[in-house]
Amino acid sequence: MLYGIFSNDTAENGSARLRVGVQYNELILDLDCVSTLGYFNDLGIDTTVFAKPVLNDFIALGKPVHQAVRQRITDLLRSDAAAIVDVYDQVFTHESRAQLHLPVRIGDYTDFYAGIHHAENVGRMFRPDGDPLLPNYRHMPVAYHGRASSIVVSGTSIRRPNGQFMQAGALSFGPSQSLDFELELGLIIGKSNPPGEPIPVDEAESYIFGVTLFNDWSARDIQRWEYQPLGPFLGKNFASSMSAWVLPFEDLEPFRMAGPVQEPVPLPYLQTTTPGHFDVQLAVSLRTESGEEVCISRSNVQYLYWNFAQMIAHHTVGGCNLNIGDVLATGTISGIDPDSYGSLLELSWNGTRPISLPDGSTRTYLLDGDAVALRAFARTDNSTIELGTVTGTIQS
Amino acid sequence: MLYGIFSNDTAENGSARLRVGVQYNELILDLDCVSTLGYFNDLGIDTTVFAKPVLNDFIALGKPVHQAVRQRITDLLRSDAAAIVDVYDQVFTHESRAQLHLPVRIGDYTDFYAGIHHAENVGRMFRPDGDPLLPNYRHMPVAYHGRASSIVVSGTSIRRPNGQFMQAGALSFGPSQSLDFELELGLIIGKSNPPGEPIPVDEAESYIFGVTLFNDWSARDIQRWEYQPLGPFLGKNFASSMSAWVLPFEDLEPFRMAGPVQEPVPLPYLQTTTPGHFDVQLAVSLRTESGEEVCISRSNVQYLYWNFAQMIAHHTVGGCNLNIGDVLATGTISGIDPDSYGSLLELSWNGTRPISLPDGSTRTYLLDGDAVALRAFARTDNSTIELGTVTGTIQS
Repeated sequence: MLYGIFSNDTAENGSARLRVGVQYNELILDLDCVSTLGYFNDLGIDTTVFAKPVLNDFIALGKPVHQAVRQRITDLLRSDAAAIVDVYDQVFTHESRAQLHLPVRIGDYTDFYAGIHHAENVGRMFRPDGDPLLPNYRHMPVAYHGRASSIVVSGTSIRRPNGQFMQAGALSFGPSQSLDFELELGLIIGKSNPPGEPIPVDEAESYIFGVTLFNDWSARDIQRWEYQPLGPFLGKNFASSMSAWVLPFEDLEPFRMAGPVQEPVPLPYLQTTTPGHFDVQLAVSLRTESGEEVCISRSNVQYLYWNFAQMIAHHTVGGCNLNIGDVLATGTISGIDPDSYGSLLELSWNGTRPISLPDGSTRTYLLDGDAVALRAFARTDNSTIELGTVTGTIQS
Repeated sequence: MLYGIFSNDTAENGSARLRVGVQYNELILDLDCVSTLGYFNDLGIDTTVFAKPVLNDFIALGKPVHQAVRQRITDLLRSDAAAIVDVYDQVFTHESRAQLHLPVRIGDYTDFYAGIHHAENVGRMFRPDGDPLLPNYRHMPVAYHGRASSIVVSGTSIRRPNGQFMQAGALSFGPSQSLDFELELGLIIGKSNPPGEPIPVDEAESYIFGVTLFNDWSARDIQRWEYQPLGPFLGKNFASSMSAWVLPFEDLEPFRMAGPVQEPVPLPYLQTTTPGHFDVQLAVSLRTESGEEVCISRSNVQYLYWNFAQMIAHHTVGGCNLNIGDVLATGTISGIDPDSYGSLLELSWNGTRPISLPDGSTRTYLLDGDAVALRAFARTDNSTIELGTVTGTIQS
């Protein structure tokens, strides 16, 4: 079940009326309307949360309420149930007639670096003579704070950023010449911890409301020139894209699996007792202005080194407080094989191996007009999930 | 004139009633009360902004309104004016009977590295054989994104963070052994720019609502182990402290001065035509649990290399949007002489030169019970300003 925020009409004051919806095939079930019609009346919850422009207030109601709402929605949508047939036109909106919005109000955004194959690839490119991983990598989920204000919903065009960078040994200023995507998953925090009170690793998953696909656009030339000694800034903060749809964390349960053996054994505050990885397939596709959409990478969430619980435990171990709606992104999730890399930096090996596209063109980095789509899905015999796509087209 | 948020009573629902106040000697002028009594009636503004728990809505009214309100307050406070004598007990609260709160709702927090003497000192300590400044330093105001959720108001106790760090070559976990302060100024953003639309450097100062003192507490051992390659994370995000009082940017005008000659000349988007530095004195004092408060550093805002307008122009040049209430901190403002350094890292030269205190003790880094206070003031023959103090006491 995917939750999001949509609008398809305007309120009395002329502004769009944003409210909570659930994706149902190509339709959106309007939870505000369902609630107004009384279908949630006996649940004893504050139904005004469905009329809000972000999911935060719904998230704040907590997991028992989420489960009750979910069960009610499932009952209403059962094919043999006649419950909502009479109000079908009221409660459903076709996705093509709706506008989708950023699903949460994001207080803070953190980007991890938990994809070990990505970290190793970056190390091999930029420190060819040393260990591809820095000494701290296997001891902690390395992360940095990103910019929350410039996170946009899937479908928003991405303007190529201007910035300064070194080109052939000379300082240049202009549009980035190495604009890249990053294939990531974002965790949406569902519960806050008080300042100064770390979240134990074994409780950490209960702080996740859901997951979303996340594209941390990166201007590699800008980033390379600016990042010493304090990390990425303008190379990242022009925009990040996230899916309009959030998958509740519980929906990942059928796909849970053990992660890689962590050696050296991490410090106790990072030791988990249950498997914390997930077998969720990822795909990146590219559509050029003149060409068709083509898949350029297939990866999997299981390639993360650090799991979600470890990220949350590490983030808070010094006392940092998380809030509902905060986004913790995983960092680029690259697989082992070259066709599973989660960025063009890796796919083109720092621009030295252009990738060929069916329209006859090649790419090292993104050109204006290129549209990138990230997708995620998982299947077992009994379950199928699909995360919302996250797309973005590069503008000059 | 200093603006802040205070409370001294409880609303009908039992929660504290936060509202806007102006500091007046040791008193707080209650702008919500002044407004309710009708003194702002003829200004034609939305006076509900004074009953809000943060300054953001007041800030959003814009500079002409700020100026009208300020003029009215000045008239009311004139010693020869009888305007508010009759309602003195209603409109004034003694600061000792009020609780002060975080003055703004902070969307995003950015920390610059604009204090060149600080950057040089750090370089001398950690890269003794190279140029103390990295190659990008004189080309751009280097910065990183910080954590907004853990910014606390002056007076809040600071818990010593746990974390991992290398100690005598071995990985350790426990309370930071090198907890430090950083003497900074924070800009409060007063106007937003749309995503993708950079703020020109010559307009940038008009985006500043005000300035505040800012202490970017730092756990040096945690930071040193974690910061490669993505910058500071847990070494900073346990807490930052800011003053409860915000000085409107216009109040700095009498202290405007030319900054250092910038060589090499920065790129055009960073070139300013008017002097953008300010002669504002800074002081750091330390009070141990057993001792008296003692001044341990005197610095000045003029020691910044990059000015405020350059910071804003750089932050947005790639299209990043700023929002009202965002905090842009300057980074540590150290002077040239050793008694003007803005952190214990520098004052104790990475722990190698303990500083002596009047109570007979010494310090390299902060001990539990130590209280740090940052102050700022400026004087000309005609003007005196004092920024609100920012204090914090270290707890185990």
